[in-house]
Amino acid sequence: MMVMAELLDYSGHLSARIAPDRFLIPTRDASRAGITADDILIVDLDGKVLEGNRPCPTETQIHAGVYRARPDVKVVGHGHPPMSVLFTMVDRPMIAIRNFGYRFIGTPVHPDPTHIRTREQGDAVARTLGQCSCCLLRGHGSVIAANSVAEVFLDSLEMEENARSAVHAASLGPLKPITPGEAEQLKASYAKNDYRAVKIWEHYQEKARLAGLL
Amino acid sequence: MMVMAELLDYSGHLSARIAPDRFLIPTRDASRAGITADDILIVDLDGKVLEGNRPCPTETQIHAGVYRARPDVKVVGHGHPPMSVLFTMVDRPMIAIRNFGYRFIGTPVHPDPTHIRTREQGDAVARTLGQCSCCLLRGHGSVIAANSVAEVFLDSLEMEENARSAVHAASLGPLKPITPGEAEQLKASYAKNDYRAVKIWEHYQEKARLAGLL
Amino acid sequence: MMVMAELLDYSGHLSARIAPDRFLIPTRDASRAGITADDILIVDLDGKVLEGNRPCPTETQIHAGVYRARPDVKVVGHGHPPMSVLFTMVDRPMIAIRNFGYRFIGTPVHPDPTHIRTREQGDAVARTLGQCSCCLLRGHGSVIAANSVAEVFLDSLEMEENARSAVHAASLGPLKPITPGEAEQLKASYAKNDYRAVKIWEHYQEKARLAGLL
Amino acid sequence: MMVMAELLDYSGHLSARIAPDRFLIPTRDASRAGITADDILIVDLDGKVLEGNRPCPTETQIHAGVYRARPDVKVVGHGHPPMSVLFTMVDRPMIAIRNFGYRFIGTPVHPDPTHIRTREQGDAVARTLGQCSCCLLRGHGSVIAANSVAEVFLDSLEMEENARSAVHAASLGPLKPITPGEAEQLKASYAKNDYRAVKIWEHYQEKARLAGLL
Repeated sequence: MMVMAELLDYSGHLSARIAPDRFLIPTRDASRAGITADDILIVDLDGKVLEGNRPCPTETQIHAGVYRARPDVKVVGHGHPPMSVLFTMVDRPMIAIRNFGYRFIGTPVHPDPTHIRTREQGDAVARTLGQCSCCLLRGHGSVIAANSVAEVFLDSLEMEENARSAVHAASLGPLKPITPGEAEQLKASYAKNDYRAVKIWEHYQEKARLAGLL
Repeated sequence: MMVMAELLDYSGHLSARIAPDRFLIPTRDASRAGITADDILIVDLDGKVLEGNRPCPTETQIHAGVYRARPDVKVVGHGHPPMSVLFTMVDRPMIAIRNFGYRFIGTPVHPDPTHIRTREQGDAVARTLGQCSCCLLRGHGSVIAANSVAEVFLDSLEMEENARSAVHAASLGPLKPITPGEAEQLKASYAKNDYRAVKIWEHYQEKARLAGLL
Repeated sequence: MMVMAELLDYSGHLSARIAPDRFLIPTRDASRAGITADDILIVDLDGKVLEGNRPCPTETQIHAGVYRARPDVKVVGHGHPPMSVLFTMVDRPMIAIRNFGYRFIGTPVHPDPTHIRTREQGDAVARTLGQCSCCLLRGHGSVIAANSVAEVFLDSLEMEENARSAVHAASLGPLKPITPGEAEQLKASYAKNDYRAVKIWEHYQEKARLAGLL
Repeated sequence: MMVMAELLDYSGHLSARIAPDRFLIPTRDASRAGITADDILIVDLDGKVLEGNRPCPTETQIHAGVYRARPDVKVVGHGHPPMSVLFTMVDRPMIAIRNFGYRFIGTPVHPDPTHIRTREQGDAVARTLGQCSCCLLRGHGSVIAANSVAEVFLDSLEMEENARSAVHAASLGPLKPITPGEAEQLKASYAKNDYRAVKIWEHYQEKARLAGLL
């Protein structure tokens, strides 16, 4: 659980499916900087707490909604990445300004800026997500659906870094973002690098160790 | 008193009303990084020091002015948030680019850029503030009036974060800020989350503890 | 000497006049992060090393030139503040976007972008500086002439912070910088706060102490 | 090897030629934060590992390609500097906004945004580099060819810092970058400062020591 702390601090709340019909999620009030096993709840796909007697996060339905709609998804992350979320507040879709950003081109934007509290709102988020691995919530944050914690971490970092580059590049003048043809080439090139999520995860663990956090 | 230190370092000076006609405020020369009980004065609503024999801050009248005009206010914070203050120097009012920013839309701007030294200047700041919880001072800083230290802290953080997002988003092109209709929805949605100020306060305390500051 | 280290690390090299015709300056190769008394030279107004047997900084003539032209100056700082220096590379003079920035409005820009090596170059810098307390060197850095180390430190910090605000504000649209009339009011208002340089100096010392540097 | 760690963490991967036909490079999976002698491979100019039994980096051909084409090059660095790389995604060549940036004016851009895996791709990178000391890879990163680790470090830092300044300056309005005539003057002026790479290297070592990393 301790290794999750670093990520949770980064990306809001993270959940992990442990059976087809239930998942782990931290309690609403657990500080992201000092989470322990006692702060983790077991929740079903309706968003009902099965184990643990403290409240679940206000937005548990983001997670439940995605798990209901996407049996393939094992881990869901919801965060408030400040650069990525800007692409929900301007009149242009997400572009790729870094090569690794090819997979975030045109990330869908969910129009509801409020907290996702109800089952209906959770279902609506899942519809916006569709078969993608990421979507953005207007003025609010991101939802990332993946197979592992390491993948959610990698997607969070790279989506944000790509968005930061787009903001900076836009100051410089007319942009020449990654084209659809280049995106195809990059997809093929990155497909050969399936070790990346684990490598970056280990690099951040090493940094956390040097900083005395692990 | 120690828990105040972290906030004071962040937001300039903070005062707390302890009776209808008096409030606590740190001395002018106390380093925000190492404040102790000896550095705290008791001041009346005219800005006169009742207890403590060192000078009060130059701008004590910001606090006194707000307490005179607003009997409902328990805590006043004055700081120099670098991003928020930009909205006093451009030809556009504050907008909301993050969902939590809905409550800062159109934050009033006080036109006097100098130090607020006199009773008259303090009254003028209070008139600009009106019934709002925040106003900005031209080229200078912010004034936040609230019920608790945790609320001032939350407002300071979120006003600044919203302003930072607005600056970055403006590089990307025409903006689509939170609309009045969305602001109404967000007001209703956030009203259900009254635990937020305390939660964020505890999160920052946990971070400070990990950093060895508390 | 130790207290100088923090400032030197921040602002390139700093010199201090110890007699009408001589000043202290660190050696060219002393790491700014670990300077000791052995790293300090005594230099005359021609830039000739009188005491110490290691080379003086390449740009010692910046200091010598200012001391020759301005008998009133006791301390000279030369640094490479990244935001301030932008105002030498765009077609607009320095403006004030923060209230404390009023004293940097129209800071003169020296046109020579190369190292200031010769007596003639040092004299030219001093002519650009004139009776001001600061000037900028094109694409290069700043020169600050003051009465004390604390004043140079304050000017360095505030010039840079004002420039940073100008860069950020410019993204938001047409600017309404501090007007000449407001600058007059601010000059009068700040004149009453002559404790500021010492207060900020002490605050940074406190921070350095907490960080274990002093 | 330990002193290399800091640089590798900064700039992706770095290699060093140890004979006309072979060079050192870290393994693909070594964390940049904790590299040891066991993580270093010996590779020939075809990119074949001669000593060490773990995989070499995916992009070893960047290094091999440059060493094949440029017998004068002793050290090659490949990194992903976020500001510098923006100049591959906009319709303008690299300019100099800081005086030290004169040597990056018009840095060539390699058009292939994918990983450089094959011998042919490595040769193509070397052709883009030509006789320069730096080139950029579209949406991807930088390649720096130099005589020493300290030079690669200096070029990485200064290219990035110049690019950051260009991004910030572009917000302020029409730019007046370093002109070709000024670049000539700067080239002459910097030629007299051949101690710079070593001085900056030592400064960063001192900082690393203070931070407890060395």
